[in-house]
Amino acid sequence: MVRAYDVIKTKRDGGTLTDEQIRWFMAGYTAGDVAPEQMSALTMAIFFNGLNKKELASWADAMLRSGVVLNLDDVKGIKVDKHSTGGVGDKISLPLAPAVAACGVPVPMVSGRGLGHTGGTLDKLQAIPGFRVDLTVEDYRRLVRDVGCCLIGQTREIAPADKKLYALRDVTATVDCIPLIASSIMSKKMAEGIDALVLDVKFGSGAFMKKKADAKLLAQTMRAIGEGLGKDVTAYLTSMEQPLGEMVGNALEVVESVEVLRGGGPKDIVDLTVALGAEMLWLGKKAKTLGEGAARMRTALADGSAFRKFQDITRAQGGDPKALENLSLLPQAPDRAVFVAPKAGFITAMDAEAIGLAAMDLGAGRARAEDTVDPAVGLKLLHKVGAKVAKGEPLVEIHHRAAKGLPSCQARLAGAYKLGATKPRQGPLVDQRLGRAGAGKLA
Amino acid sequence: MVRAYDVIKTKRDGGTLTDEQIRWFMAGYTAGDVAPEQMSALTMAIFFNGLNKKELASWADAMLRSGVVLNLDDVKGIKVDKHSTGGVGDKISLPLAPAVAACGVPVPMVSGRGLGHTGGTLDKLQAIPGFRVDLTVEDYRRLVRDVGCCLIGQTREIAPADKKLYALRDVTATVDCIPLIASSIMSKKMAEGIDALVLDVKFGSGAFMKKKADAKLLAQTMRAIGEGLGKDVTAYLTSMEQPLGEMVGNALEVVESVEVLRGGGPKDIVDLTVALGAEMLWLGKKAKTLGEGAARMRTALADGSAFRKFQDITRAQGGDPKALENLSLLPQAPDRAVFVAPKAGFITAMDAEAIGLAAMDLGAGRARAEDTVDPAVGLKLLHKVGAKVAKGEPLVEIHHRAAKGLPSCQARLAGAYKLGATKPRQGPLVDQRLGRAGAGKLA
Repeated sequence: MVRAYDVIKTKRDGGTLTDEQIRWFMAGYTAGDVAPEQMSALTMAIFFNGLNKKELASWADAMLRSGVVLNLDDVKGIKVDKHSTGGVGDKISLPLAPAVAACGVPVPMVSGRGLGHTGGTLDKLQAIPGFRVDLTVEDYRRLVRDVGCCLIGQTREIAPADKKLYALRDVTATVDCIPLIASSIMSKKMAEGIDALVLDVKFGSGAFMKKKADAKLLAQTMRAIGEGLGKDVTAYLTSMEQPLGEMVGNALEVVESVEVLRGGGPKDIVDLTVALGAEMLWLGKKAKTLGEGAARMRTALADGSAFRKFQDITRAQGGDPKALENLSLLPQAPDRAVFVAPKAGFITAMDAEAIGLAAMDLGAGRARAEDTVDPAVGLKLLHKVGAKVAKGEPLVEIHHRAAKGLPSCQARLAGAYKLGATKPRQGPLVDQRLGRAGAGKLA
Repeated sequence: MVRAYDVIKTKRDGGTLTDEQIRWFMAGYTAGDVAPEQMSALTMAIFFNGLNKKELASWADAMLRSGVVLNLDDVKGIKVDKHSTGGVGDKISLPLAPAVAACGVPVPMVSGRGLGHTGGTLDKLQAIPGFRVDLTVEDYRRLVRDVGCCLIGQTREIAPADKKLYALRDVTATVDCIPLIASSIMSKKMAEGIDALVLDVKFGSGAFMKKKADAKLLAQTMRAIGEGLGKDVTAYLTSMEQPLGEMVGNALEVVESVEVLRGGGPKDIVDLTVALGAEMLWLGKKAKTLGEGAARMRTALADGSAFRKFQDITRAQGGDPKALENLSLLPQAPDRAVFVAPKAGFITAMDAEAIGLAAMDLGAGRARAEDTVDPAVGLKLLHKVGAKVAKGEPLVEIHHRAAKGLPSCQARLAGAYKLGATKPRQGPLVDQRLGRAGAGKLA
């Protein structure tokens, strides 16, 4: 017989939990038979003593089986999703999902909302008039099958144990624990009915993981869980030292995504979209190598097929596809201000977290989960790290509403930018790939 | 502003908690503002990262201040109590408290009940017909003042945070954590209104701490808490490899205690009573050295003053003092059995824990806190470690009631005794003293 006390004591003393113990504990916690104080004692013991590969798979699987596991067996093809650990200006899902779907790989994507300095895909999609992310499971399945992609929010039925556990960890100081982060992410992703997954694990000032080593450990842990559950998972470590792209704010990020889907847009957004998309095509067996995948992605962005797919998705999810043709139909902030360079020089650093918080001050993000966001406000970053600017030259165009949050936003921007006399050296955006061999080179 | 999250995270990350943080957290937990899951996360973090001397004092003081702190300021003299971490046959409080009181040191003593293999002072006292341990705080104060000693149970008003916390630790696997054990004991003892304390910290097979090193760490931790709270605390490390004395069972232990109070009794009980009593007299400034204290203790046991004090206490607490003169008035088990030596030889070991459980099988102890005990049943140990016995010679006289628990009792005894060809070497009963210097030698 499994007893909660023994499970906690075993992990506390550095032992290994059995699959049965983990499933019993998680089911009991979800049902209310294992008390919250027992779960918090166990998670704190896990903070200190970790979970091995087998325990991790059991833990994540127990969480995903606490709720509905979506079944997409009637959708042909290898279903592949992408998950990012979150950053500032990270709108990659918006061009990526339609482009990959346009290349023939079904993309069932369950996304989240923004919190703190990081934005969320759902908030960005909802800047498109009428776009609904609260579809039923039946509609979700139908759209993945018929349109090739569906972009929804997490339903209450998916992994309720994870939701309950996250709220507990949040008040008991066990959020920043890699095995628990990894299993939380993976349990939700594995409940989507996918076959394979690409992880974009961010590191740097704007990421949850500030250090590359921590990001790598998180990536490896998520890959181990995927392997334990029989799913093909590739992880990319990517830099989040400065924001991605030039737009931070929900409607502004839709504008930038549409630019990319029409063959334009900033280089960093295009490059990351192509890299992650190439991997998804390779995992989905629609490209023999990453190089072939990248070429197909670039073609889909250039020939309009990715954009048309995004219009199809928008239409299918209740949104107004005309707003993607005529971007002035998207919400627009009534007021503008600028943040200017306090001196001449090269931009040597743009603190992504500070810039994310500056946008949050305007109303673009949430301090708490229950806050609402203003889709129209945000920041247009006129220059990125490495640019040479003159004193007084505008660095940021601030899209605000009646100066709400403007002084605080300006103050944060003043702290976020570093200017220097010499052009800074920059690391690559995509630092490394952690994945199955045999994919060849991207380029 | 103190936040529960920050307190947990600080301890989790190996930091030091402030006095304010500890008091706030404990007060919030007692009041219900800090959730049980937050307290269990903190105690698990303490299990891994410990508490330093200053934190320990704050933690214990916060617990003791969660309830009533008894005030014995109107009782003249230095009030000294003794606490034992618990063992088998440990009836030392019964001869010790009256003997010390007879020598002029007031003894306010709050004791506990037996659980598992260990007995409890309250159960032993209640084997005396009429003896009440549930006195009011006012009666407690009056008896310490007028009789010089009072022996009661923990009231609900004393350290409620400790009671609540112990129940939480019991289900979250943080009971066996030295800082939490030490602060639990000390918070209750310090709430009694005492000035000084003697700790009898047991080690060995029958003790909670099996290893001497753990017992020493516990003793040092409790001394550190005492020092932090400005109380004089001496700890003795004593062996609990075999039961103390020859009787295990509540009424039987009263009989043995009365023997000691009348100048007789087994050597180990007398020696430990004299050693702990000498220390209490020294702490209470009624002896200039431990040697002088020991001499006074031996005199009190020999001249009848200790016995008369026990009669006074018994009378004052509602008990029948005649039962101490005529021991046949104490509860007596109706039936007898014997456990005999399976072969000839020296007794080389008597597993105290197994013998404690053997007595519990008869009904002398509790498996769970809500069980009741039978005061009459128990074991009379006819020989101790080192004795030479013949095959078939009785080793234990079993006092039982209609064979209740007898087979299991016999089986446990069979496992408890080891017989060998050579006389075993035995360590000293009192292993070491951890206390303030200047007390001189016991003998």
